[in-house]
Amino acid sequence: MANDTVTGPKGFLAAGLASGVKASGKADLGLLVCPTGAAAAAVFTTNKIVSAAVEVSREHVRSRKIRAVVVNSGCANACTGKTGLANARKMCSLTAGHLGAEPEEVLVASTGVIGHQLPMEKVTDGIMKAADSLSYSQTAGFAFAQAIMTTDTRSKHAVRRLTLPGADVTIAGTVKGAGMIAPRMATTLLFITTDVSITKPLLSRALAHAVGESLNKLTVDGHQSTNDTGIVLASGAAGHRTITSQCPRYKKFAAALTDLCDDLARQMALDAEGATRMFKVVIQGAASRADAAKAARAVADYPLLKCAIHGGDPNWGRIICAIGSSGVALNPGKLSCKLDDLYVFRGGAPTKFDVRQAARIVSQREHTITVDLGVGRAGDFCYGCDLSAEYVRINADYHT
Amino acid sequence: MANDTVTGPKGFLAAGLASGVKASGKADLGLLVCPTGAAAAAVFTTNKIVSAAVEVSREHVRSRKIRAVVVNSGCANACTGKTGLANARKMCSLTAGHLGAEPEEVLVASTGVIGHQLPMEKVTDGIMKAADSLSYSQTAGFAFAQAIMTTDTRSKHAVRRLTLPGADVTIAGTVKGAGMIAPRMATTLLFITTDVSITKPLLSRALAHAVGESLNKLTVDGHQSTNDTGIVLASGAAGHRTITSQCPRYKKFAAALTDLCDDLARQMALDAEGATRMFKVVIQGAASRADAAKAARAVADYPLLKCAIHGGDPNWGRIICAIGSSGVALNPGKLSCKLDDLYVFRGGAPTKFDVRQAARIVSQREHTITVDLGVGRAGDFCYGCDLSAEYVRINADYHT
Repeated sequence: MANDTVTGPKGFLAAGLASGVKASGKADLGLLVCPTGAAAAAVFTTNKIVSAAVEVSREHVRSRKIRAVVVNSGCANACTGKTGLANARKMCSLTAGHLGAEPEEVLVASTGVIGHQLPMEKVTDGIMKAADSLSYSQTAGFAFAQAIMTTDTRSKHAVRRLTLPGADVTIAGTVKGAGMIAPRMATTLLFITTDVSITKPLLSRALAHAVGESLNKLTVDGHQSTNDTGIVLASGAAGHRTITSQCPRYKKFAAALTDLCDDLARQMALDAEGATRMFKVVIQGAASRADAAKAARAVADYPLLKCAIHGGDPNWGRIICAIGSSGVALNPGKLSCKLDDLYVFRGGAPTKFDVRQAARIVSQREHTITVDLGVGRAGDFCYGCDLSAEYVRINADYHT
Repeated sequence: MANDTVTGPKGFLAAGLASGVKASGKADLGLLVCPTGAAAAAVFTTNKIVSAAVEVSREHVRSRKIRAVVVNSGCANACTGKTGLANARKMCSLTAGHLGAEPEEVLVASTGVIGHQLPMEKVTDGIMKAADSLSYSQTAGFAFAQAIMTTDTRSKHAVRRLTLPGADVTIAGTVKGAGMIAPRMATTLLFITTDVSITKPLLSRALAHAVGESLNKLTVDGHQSTNDTGIVLASGAAGHRTITSQCPRYKKFAAALTDLCDDLARQMALDAEGATRMFKVVIQGAASRADAAKAARAVADYPLLKCAIHGGDPNWGRIICAIGSSGVALNPGKLSCKLDDLYVFRGGAPTKFDVRQAARIVSQREHTITVDLGVGRAGDFCYGCDLSAEYVRINADYHT
C-alpha cells in the first residue's frame, strides 16, 4: 500500500509520541527529519502577537538547509516572554544535538493554550525518545500527524504524485486545526514534505501561492492565531535536475502543491469545531479581486448564515445582507445569487425557486454559493463551514 | 405613575396592534403620531442593500415637519423591487390620509424576513385600526413598543427627564433588536420622542452623536442589516425657547439623549438572541481613536471569546489573540489587559492572578475588559454579548 503520509516522499523520517505536555496522555510531540538537509520555505501568522516558536522559526528558515522540524501540541508557548523564547530555542538545540545538526537547521512549532510555559523536563525527555524512534515508515508518518493535533477529531493527510522529466515526484502534507479556530487556542499548523529538487526561492514562491489559494481562503471564525505556521521541506531525493526557473516543471509542481493544500483546507473545514458542513463562496462580477475576496469572506464569516446552513435552511436573504454590509461596490439592480446551480435571486429580485430543492442543496456536505455583484469582471472565493451549538459547547465548556 | 414610554413626552400619541402580518398573531403594526408636527432627525443603515422603507424615509425625513411614523414587523420589505417600494409609499399615504397630513410628513420602518412582499390588505386594514386607536396613554406607548418587536423577548424603554431654563423636558425611547442580529433578518429600529424645542440641524447632530456613542458601539454579530433605522421626533411642546445653537441647553439635551441611547444599547445587548451576559471592551493607549475602535470591535466580535464568556471562563489569551489579529499598532512588551480591576496580563506577560476571582468577574451579568496597547494616548470602547448554543438554535431552526 502506498504511504500517503509525510514519510511518503523520499528522504524523510518522522516520529510522534506522548511526552506528557497534554494532561490527557495523548500524543503531543512530533519530529520530522530530513538527514540530508532540505530546501525549506515557510509562511507564518500575520498576528502581531506571535508565539516564541514562530519567532525562532522565522529566523531559522533563512538557513540554507533545514534538517528537522520539532512540534509540540498542548501548549502554544505564546505570551510567555523571555522564558518562552529560551524554551523554543532549547527545543531546536536539543533536536539538533540528537541529530548532529546545527540548531539553526531546526524549525519549531507549537500549538495549544496561550500564556503557559512549556514543561521543559517533559519536552526534553520527549525529544530524546522521538529522536530514538524516528522511522521512514507510514506508521511514523501517522504518529507525527497525531502528535500535532489538538481539538481535531481526526488527522488529515493529502498526497499528490506527479511525473517530471527525469523522475516521479511525491508531495505529502498534514495539517492540524480548522481555519483559525481549531485548537482551543486557535492555531493552524501545516507540514509538507516533497522529494522534488527545487531552489529555495522557487519553493517559497510555490508555497505562498498554494497557501494563498487554499488555507488562506478558509475562515472558521475570521481570526488568525499567534502560532499559525506552514512549512514545506524539499529533500531533492527524487533525483531529477533541480528546478531553477518558473519553467513548465515548476508550474506542474506548483499546481500540484496548490491542489494538495486545497485538499487539506477542505478537510479542515469539515473537521472545524462542531462543523457538520462546509461551503464555498464564489464572487463574480466584482470591481476588483480585493472586493471579491472581501465579499466572499463577509458571507463565509456571517454567523447568521452559518447557523442557517447548519439548519439546512436556504436563507438567501442573509447572503444578500452580508454582501451589502461588506462595503464592496455592487449594483443592486444586477445582483444575483445561486445555490449550486439554482438561482434564488436575480436582477435585484427573488426568483420563484423550489424551496425544497434549495433546502436539499444547502443540506449537502458541501455546496457552492455564487454571487454576481454586477459591476465588473473580477472574482475570488472563500471556504466556510456551518456554526453549530457544538462549537459553542466546545469553546464555552473549556476552562483555562 | 410616570409614563416612561414614547407617549411620555408632551405631544405624542401612539398605537400598536396585530394586523396579521405575523403568522403568530402577535402585534406587528405600530403608529407614532405628533399632530402638531415634530422636528425630526434620523440615522439609517450603511448597508448598500436597503429596504424600501429606508429608501422612502430617507426622502421624507427632509420634510420640515414630521407628523407620524408607521412601522411594521414580521416582514422587512427588503429585496422586494418596485412593488416593495410602492408598498412602502402606500403605508405613508394611507397613514397621512387618516391623519389629514401629507405623505411626505410620514416616516416608515419595517423589520422581519427579507425577500417577501408585504400583505397589503392586512397592512391597510391595520393602519386604519391603529389610527382609530391612537392615544396619549402609557398603554398606547407600550403597545407601540410591542408592535415593533421580532425575536426580542421583552420590549425596551428608557426615559430621561431634564430641566432646561423655562421648562422641564422629557426624552423617551424604545428600541427593538439586538445589535445587528436580533430579528431573524437582522435589524434594529429605534424611536425616540421628546418635547424639547430644537432646530432640525441640531436635532440631527445630537442624534448622530448619541447613536454613535451607544448603538453603534454595540456588536452582536458584526453585521448591519438592510433595515436599521433610528428616528427622533421633537414636538417642542415643553414650551421653552427653541434651542438654536450649541449652547449649554443643547449640551444638556444632547448628553441626556446620549445617555438614553446608551441605556437602550445595554438593554439590547442583554436581550440579544441567546445572550446571557454582556461586556464592555475599553481600549486605551492606542495610536489613534480609529485603531482603538477597531481593536475594541475585534475583541467584542471574537466568537471564541464570546463562547468563553458564556462559559464563565477568564480566557484572556483569546483577548490578546483578537487584539494581535486586529492589525492595530501595539507594543507587545507594554501590552496589558484587565478584567474589571484585575490585571491578568501586564508588560507583555501573564500576571499571577487568582483564577477563581477572574472567573467570578466574567460570570457577572456585565463586566469590563480593558486593554492598553502601549503605543499612544487614544481610546474607544465597544459593547458585546456572549455567544450561546441558544443563539445557534434560534438561527438554525428558523426556516424561511
